Order: sequence, then C-alpha cells, then structure tokens
Amino acid sequence: MTTTVKAWAKPSADGPLEATTIERRDLGPNDVRIDITFAGICHSDIHTARAEWGEISYPIVVGHEIAGVVAEVGSDVTRHAVGDRVGVGCMVGSCRECKNCRNDEEQYCVKGNIGTYNGTDVDGRPTAGGYSDEIVVAEDFVLRIPDGIELDEAAPLLCAGITTFSPLHRWNAGPGKRVAVVGLGGLGHMAVKIAVAMGAEVTVLSQSLKKQEDGLRLGAKHYYATSDPDTFANLKNSFDLIINTVSAKIPVDSYLSLLDVNGAMVNVGAPEEPLSVNAFSLITNGRSYAGSMIGGIKETQEMLDFCAEHHLGAEVEVIPFDKVNEAWDRVVASDVRYRFVLDTSTL
Amino acid sequence: MTTTVKAWAKPSADGPLEATTIERRDLGPNDVRIDITFAGICHSDIHTARAEWGEISYPIVVGHEIAGVVAEVGSDVTRHAVGDRVGVGCMVGSCRECKNCRNDEEQYCVKGNIGTYNGTDVDGRPTAGGYSDEIVVAEDFVLRIPDGIELDEAAPLLCAGITTFSPLHRWNAGPGKRVAVVGLGGLGHMAVKIAVAMGAEVTVLSQSLKKQEDGLRLGAKHYYATSDPDTFANLKNSFDLIINTVSAKIPVDSYLSLLDVNGAMVNVGAPEEPLSVNAFSLITNGRSYAGSMIGGIKETQEMLDFCAEHHLGAEVEVIPFDKVNEAWDRVVASDVRYRFVLDTSTL
Repeated sequence: MTTTVKAWAKPSADGPLEATTIERRDLGPNDVRIDITFAGICHSDIHTARAEWGEISYPIVVGHEIAGVVAEVGSDVTRHAVGDRVGVGCMVGSCRECKNCRNDEEQYCVKGNIGTYNGTDVDGRPTAGGYSDEIVVAEDFVLRIPDGIELDEAAPLLCAGITTFSPLHRWNAGPGKRVAVVGLGGLGHMAVKIAVAMGAEVTVLSQSLKKQEDGLRLGAKHYYATSDPDTFANLKNSFDLIINTVSAKIPVDSYLSLLDVNGAMVNVGAPEEPLSVNAFSLITNGRSYAGSMIGGIKETQEMLDFCAEHHLGAEVEVIPFDKVNEAWDRVVASDVRYRFVLDTSTL
Repeated sequence: MTTTVKAWAKPSADGPLEATTIERRDLGPNDVRIDITFAGICHSDIHTARAEWGEISYPIVVGHEIAGVVAEVGSDVTRHAVGDRVGVGCMVGSCRECKNCRNDEEQYCVKGNIGTYNGTDVDGRPTAGGYSDEIVVAEDFVLRIPDGIELDEAAPLLCAGITTFSPLHRWNAGPGKRVAVVGLGGLGHMAVKIAVAMGAEVTVLSQSLKKQEDGLRLGAKHYYATSDPDTFANLKNSFDLIINTVSAKIPVDSYLSLLDVNGAMVNVGAPEEPLSVNAFSLITNGRSYAGSMIGGIKETQEMLDFCAEHHLGAEVEVIPFDKVNEAWDRVVASDVRYRFVLDTSTL
C-alpha cells in the first residue's frame, strides 16, 4: 500500500523538472511520516538528475536537504513525536549492523547507505527525495531540528552543514587553528560560519574578491583571490587546515603548499578527472590530503545542536517550485547567495 | 682551523667513490667530536651523490646514518661526555628559533635544516657525512644510543628508523590497528619491526613473495604480493594505516582503496614525477594521503629509546669501505637484507 503525494520530478536527463505525483510507502512500525516544509537545492541534485555522475532511472525526484514537521509516527517509534521539527539529509537508511554503522559512520556503511534519492529503499522501490510535500523515513535517519534555527535556514544544514562540520570537527578546527575555506558557495559559506563559531581563524580563498564583503561579514578574518598568483606566494605554510568545497579540478600542489607543518587539506567535493599530486608536496611539512563524505547520523545531530546553540543557519533565498528550473541554472552559474530553498507550500 | 680526517668521497656524478681526506672544523664550545664506528648506506646517499635529485658540488662525502663514540666535547657541552655511544642522522643543524624548531620539528625548520651532507655548515663550508672516521656536530643534533643496541645495528635507525617510527607514532600504530608496510627494504623492514613492537597487526605488501619468510620472521602477520591483482581485490578497506616506503611511482588509487574508514596512507619516499589521485578515492571512507619526512631530534631520541627497550636493531650486513661501490650497485638492485653498514676501521 502506498500514499500519493505531490512532487516535482525530472522526467529525463535533458528535460526540465515538472510537477507530478509519486507514491510514498505506508508507515512501518519504525517509520516517521514528515510534512516537508522546505527543501534545499544542492548542486548534487543537479549533477545526479542530469546524469552527470552516471546513468540513473527516470523520472527522479531529488532533494536531500529536507526540513519539516512530523505528521505521523509508526507504532514502535520512540525518538520522534507528531509536531516535532525534523530534518532528513543525504541518507534514509543503512545496514545498521556493519562495523561502520555501529561506529556511527553510516555514510560509510559496508553494504552502502541508502541515498535519500536515486537509492533503493527498504521496500525495493527507488527512493525519492525532498522536492515533495511528504516523505516516509525510518526514525533512525530523522534528525531533530532544535529551536533557535528556522526551518528554511535549517534545511541546507542537512547536507551543506554536515559536509563541512564533519571535517572541521575531525581535524580540530578551534582556537589557535588557521583554517582556509576554498570557495564561498553553499558549502563554503557554512564552512566559514561553523569554523568561526568553533573559534578558528578563518580565511576565504575564492576565485575573485566579488564576495569579499560577505565573507568578512560571515566572520572570516581574511579573504584572498586565488586568481592572483601572489595569493599562493604570500600564503605559503600559512594554514593548519584547508576545506576545499570546490569540485572543479584545482592545482593541488599549489594549495598543499599553503599548509603549515602537519596541516591537512580536505576535499568535500571531487572532480571527475584524476588530480595530479607531487608526493614532495606531502612530505614537505608532513602534510595530508584527505577526503570527507557528509557525516554519520549522530554527528549530524551534533552539528544541528551546535548550529542551534550558535544561531547558525544557512543564508537562503526561499523560492516557489515554479522557479526551480531557473534556480538550477543559477546554481550552475554560481549565482546564489548562498542556498536556494524550495517552499513546499507552493507545490 | 681544521682537522684532516679520512673519508670516502664521490668525485663526480659518474665516477666511483674513492678514498680521500677531508677537513673537519675545530671544536666550538657547543660541539661534539665523534669517532665514527659505523655508517649505514641509505638509498638517498646514492640519489644525491649521483645527482639524481638535482645538481650538487663535488667531491661529496655522504652518509647520514652515523653511529660512534664521543671523542671530545666543547667547553659548554652538557648533554654528552667523552666515551658516550652516540649517533647522528640526516640533520646537523637548524635555526633553533623558528616555530617549527621550538616545536621539536627541526626537520621542517622554516629556514631549512642543515643536511648532514650536501648542506652548508655553520662555518659556511659544505657539510660532509658519515663515510668518514670523524665528524664534528653541534651537541643538540647528537643522539644518545642506549645500551641494548649494538652500534652497527643502531646506525640505520638514524634515518630508516626515525623515518618509519615518526609516521607510525603520529598515526597511532598500536594494538587494534591494522598497519600495512609497502616494500620490505631498509625502511620497510624497520617499519615492520617498529609497528609490531608498538602492538599493531602488520601486513607486508611487497612486489613478490621472495622475502615472505623474512617478513613473517620480523613479526608481520600477513604477506602479500602486489604483483598479484587479487591482493588489491581481497584487501579492500582492510587497513587503518599504510606506510609506503617505495619511492617508485605507484598506482595511488589502488593503494588508497585498501584503507578502511578514516585510514591514512603515508609516503616516506617520493618519486620525481607527479602521481595521479582521484579525489573520490579520498572521499570514500574519509581517507587521507599524507607525507612524512624523517622526524625531529626529540622524536629521534624517543625512537632510539623505544628501539633499545624492544631490542630492535636494523638487520645489517657490515662491509669494508673497499666494497662500497659494489654495495651501492646492490642497493640500487634491492639486493641487500636489509642495510649495508660501513665499518670505519677499514678506512
């Protein structure tokens, strides 16, 4: 048995998104039905739906930055109640038995986590994401959104927030640490806010100085243009941690040269093509080049609690669904400050 | 004023090493004069002296794995006394004032450390290494060799020992940690011994199974040939730490695929050419690819104390100086188990 709900889907790799309906599974004993209030637009939605990351099945409903209110709970649900403000991020399931799941690293589930869209759900049907008015999710993958963050500015935290919080947390961003954030987009602006709230001294490295005023307003101490070769000459050995939010191919050795002793650069996005790395760039100063993928459920809750405590929401532009295709083009053109959020009351 | 001492030098990039004499500076108030007993042969000696790492001045006396006995101390020396068993590694000086020197990371001295050979000494003359019967070194760069290790098996610890101890220590090799050592040569055999003594479960990844018996005797639990593609298929996500002692170009993504969640691969050597790395290899499992260069003086002393406590010396083949040219060819051919050590009584 299923329930028909409203959604916007992409019918093919090339065609625009359009209004449609999809089926949500009936509530199991451990499931939570959520009335979605807002869904953030992540660049991954676009890459996936345009088949830029590999072939997918159509139609597809994307969206993995979901904020809403609990509408109904299954008979065995203990962690959430009707009326609770909740969120769902990039995962709606995992095996929960493997070593990684037991270590609260469900994103690295040995059997693979179940993606919020473009995955295979527990009932065997394809998962469908947050560009929709309702979703049914196992309670363990539903996060509490604490008071202190509005739902619209909370939605992007479920992907952009945790993706940047996790490496900042793991590499101990905090007082005395010099953190550079590469790229000031959806992820980058959250990286700046979170790193500043953690107490680090934050520098933005952006292609141009166009968003400098914003970067400093968000709490960054310094802002440099990577298009200026002096930036790399002047900042040699200057950072303990670099969070690279840019998925384009970058000159890795130039960025590594900015790291001081035992420093790390962490990629949270990745270009398709392999990168060129000179091992001497790593051996010098004992540097690391690392990657990080979202974060586990427990850490995502910690991130939401941290953001609420520090009143850190995403900077959002709330839009109706009939603007979604235009918004996607603007995301691709980096023309958004700093996250579009779809208002599901316009479905 | 200087003192003339015996040495073997390389007169040119192409010519063989030959017996000669060199001048050592007179003892300053903080200097220690060491009667060198043994000098290990490191592959770096060969790369440097053959100008494979860039142009150098000739003649050059190499050797940075030095063990001997204190013959004389300057008036202000407090840390060493005549008759002490001591060693000298890859550095004989640094600025001692920069942030890195103050943090006991002299190898990353902001002004550059002074190499034991092919460097510029405090008196402005080129430094000359351990293929010699005496050396004069500032006391801060002279290490104590504790009882429990013979001088011949201690000499290689000053480079091969600290180069592998430092990353094992920094990345917490110990009980419960699965450590792979790539390459079973001079560095690799010390990495195995040290990681085993730290309590880690150690696997050797070597091109062939030729040295398998040795690897297991040194304490490794497992031994696999990297020439066998099954090795990479079977060991996916199997290690917490990989110490790569091989300087040849390797398929980095294949090795990274062997790392479990939050695992790190650390290069202690480096090929000339850049390596190809796919950022997805890093993002998957939150992996790191890092580099490490020898270790600081304080950490080198810790390594020597650790090795003495666990009776870990290098496995050495002691040879006279008139075999040095032949030995170099055998090092290049990987035909040594596991370190040649020159006996300075044959000078």
